[in-house]
Amino acid sequence: MDAVLLFSVLNNKITMIKSVKIASKFGQQYRYASQVLPQLSSEKYKIIRKKFATVQETDLHYFKHTLGENRVISDESDILPYNIDWVKHCRGALICEAGCVLETLDNFVREHGLIMPLDLGAKGTCQIGGNVSTNAGGLRLLRYGNLHGSILGLEAVRADGTIVDCLKALKKDNTGYHLKHLFIGSEGTLGVVTKVAIHCPALPKAVTIGFFGVNNFENVLKLYKSAKSSLGEILSAFEMCDQEAIESSVKYLNQRLPIPEFPFYVLIETHGSNDAHDEEKLNNFLKKEMDNGLILDGTITSEPTKMQYIWRFRESIPAGDMNGTFMYAFDVSLPQSHYYELVPILREKLGDKVLKVSGFGHIGDGNAHINVVTEEYSQEVTDIVEPFLFEEVAKRQGSVSAEHGIGLKKPQYMHFSKDESAIQLMRDLKQLMDPNGILNPYKVLPEIK
Amino acid sequence: MDAVLLFSVLNNKITMIKSVKIASKFGQQYRYASQVLPQLSSEKYKIIRKKFATVQETDLHYFKHTLGENRVISDESDILPYNIDWVKHCRGALICEAGCVLETLDNFVREHGLIMPLDLGAKGTCQIGGNVSTNAGGLRLLRYGNLHGSILGLEAVRADGTIVDCLKALKKDNTGYHLKHLFIGSEGTLGVVTKVAIHCPALPKAVTIGFFGVNNFENVLKLYKSAKSSLGEILSAFEMCDQEAIESSVKYLNQRLPIPEFPFYVLIETHGSNDAHDEEKLNNFLKKEMDNGLILDGTITSEPTKMQYIWRFRESIPAGDMNGTFMYAFDVSLPQSHYYELVPILREKLGDKVLKVSGFGHIGDGNAHINVVTEEYSQEVTDIVEPFLFEEVAKRQGSVSAEHGIGLKKPQYMHFSKDESAIQLMRDLKQLMDPNGILNPYKVLPEIK
Repeated sequence: MDAVLLFSVLNNKITMIKSVKIASKFGQQYRYASQVLPQLSSEKYKIIRKKFATVQETDLHYFKHTLGENRVISDESDILPYNIDWVKHCRGALICEAGCVLETLDNFVREHGLIMPLDLGAKGTCQIGGNVSTNAGGLRLLRYGNLHGSILGLEAVRADGTIVDCLKALKKDNTGYHLKHLFIGSEGTLGVVTKVAIHCPALPKAVTIGFFGVNNFENVLKLYKSAKSSLGEILSAFEMCDQEAIESSVKYLNQRLPIPEFPFYVLIETHGSNDAHDEEKLNNFLKKEMDNGLILDGTITSEPTKMQYIWRFRESIPAGDMNGTFMYAFDVSLPQSHYYELVPILREKLGDKVLKVSGFGHIGDGNAHINVVTEEYSQEVTDIVEPFLFEEVAKRQGSVSAEHGIGLKKPQYMHFSKDESAIQLMRDLKQLMDPNGILNPYKVLPEIK
Repeated sequence: MDAVLLFSVLNNKITMIKSVKIASKFGQQYRYASQVLPQLSSEKYKIIRKKFATVQETDLHYFKHTLGENRVISDESDILPYNIDWVKHCRGALICEAGCVLETLDNFVREHGLIMPLDLGAKGTCQIGGNVSTNAGGLRLLRYGNLHGSILGLEAVRADGTIVDCLKALKKDNTGYHLKHLFIGSEGTLGVVTKVAIHCPALPKAVTIGFFGVNNFENVLKLYKSAKSSLGEILSAFEMCDQEAIESSVKYLNQRLPIPEFPFYVLIETHGSNDAHDEEKLNNFLKKEMDNGLILDGTITSEPTKMQYIWRFRESIPAGDMNGTFMYAFDVSLPQSHYYELVPILREKLGDKVLKVSGFGHIGDGNAHINVVTEEYSQEVTDIVEPFLFEEVAKRQGSVSAEHGIGLKKPQYMHFSKDESAIQLMRDLKQLMDPNGILNPYKVLPEIK
């Protein structure tokens, strides 16, 4: 794999040293997108710099000598694309690791009759090292489980530079502690993931999707229960979005929805080994639930172009919600019975201070995405929503970060989802693994008050 | 849950303190089975006792006062059943944790339309705390994944007595480090698992099994590839055993196999949501592979009594191999292409020094069980097999313990499967979590030489 070593010299500070693929789409995209520079994260999150060294010419020389001249980027404009988060909330805070883009991997393994066990809206830009470090979830977790199950082994670099080799590709190996899990989802704060071995499921012979209009959220839930029962083992995704969410992607894509307007939409995907069986199951399901009144209108297709056309309405919601506007993206887990409750609560609380509040996500795993959309960043809106939203999530036994992680933004909210005994053990682990706090500093763990 | 506190006073030492269900079948069984007492593990593994306290009358009084008189067992004959491992290799070394028997749990969740995500031959006796601590695998890992994926949350007690609460029951929660994995599979050496939250899959509406005779192992592998392709999403188990293995269970059960004798047998189970679809898939598979000559004879059934009848031949192999004889049980992971190679190698090496070498296991996850059967324990046989077998596994990039763990028996063999960098990180974690070495001492980590 071709790799390049990156570090930010924007502030003459090393913010992170990573190995990433040269000229990823991620980079290309931001050469054009980042016209207006967001706040530096050190300003936004009021970070007091710890006693780290600063990058000197001798450091640059060392890396250029070790890796080769063209594998070190130090020009500010070249670094910028890697240095701005996707929702343009801040600069610095680069999280981007060992270095294949998810979609490239998926295309590669498909040639070998397999698929990647995870699929995200961001698949065209996100990189597998980052996916692993953040335990990325996405659209098909319902079927293929999370990365703690799919990652067979990995290699990581500890804070002292030691390479930890846990790169076995065995499905079962009970020899000692299961160390890989320390690095999956710890956001690079316990070590830097440099190689991964992933179990890839077989490419399904039959793929079918259904797109349905539903009258209210209660019926969305009933439909989910029915789908689990009728479609069981072939169900690979059960996604929902409300009208506000789909409107954003309709406008962004400038394309017509295949069915009329409804308060809620459900997208069901099946992966199976027999076309005829799967279509029969899905058609029986559609017929039954139209008779029951749960589905008001719907379409079923297994034609690849049509399936892609429908998927894009679901995947483009975040892009639509920040299309010339500012988006506050919340990513929470809630028990299914409380899954959609916070959307109407936020709408009432925010009123006309915001353009819209949209709700969508992965019902199957309880992961609700809530976007609050405004003309531009507003401190007043921030203060209304945070920590109110996290308190409401905690009351319902949910998680304040289902799949996006903690990062710089949520350390002070971690206690809403984690017991103090767990946070203490995390601190003990951080102290053991990274006593000088040089790995992805200021992130994940809350400061001791 | 009713619980009882146990500790061994056989040697007037605390060997372990655990919470287990009263009068489990495990206990009952051994009241009758353990006529001849095996060696103490401290003798067998030449353990030099560390500086631990010994149990005093005041300790017994404290526990009786705290838990109630009838929840503390101190009589030697009452403790014995919990104190002998199943294969009767040693006494002491009790591993037995928070306290529901797997089969009892499975029966309970079935009443709610669910199943437990793991199933073992030992389900009637093993307890869920132990399953979690040892990351038990078993018969359906192929379909439902391992416990790192199924365990949603857990509570554990640290060496200093602190309770770590990670008992969230959310499918997605990326708030901080994923601590539960520290306790899954670390065999009680980093903490004692006291509560678990488990994701249980839906009870399948349709269950079907096929039992097939096959001519050689190459054809077993071909059959597996074909089953993955034809049965895909409904495949819940793909088990194989050789003639030597099945002979043991036939003799032990004193029942007739449903098909004639063949060099190899394959048991395929499907879990699905539609009887007609699943039977059609399995019948098409049988017909196709009989035409191809991979299957020589076979039977398919979805009748519960018949399915249970067939499953017992597979599940009774270990009991059959130690039915009046002594069994050395090896549990290794191997890449599929090398899965069966070590059985004929061992047969040749051991010749008539042993009664038989049998091979069986879970092809789908690469887990091969190899039993060496002798009249009685023989040091000569041990010395021939160990570490030879583990060296051969290492050469083939396998694991010296697929699902049974390390325990007292394999610390010195861990390096065959784990890099020194990983073992060092394990030591660091042990030092952090249990600096006095009081949790399940002498186990898992190799002594530093």
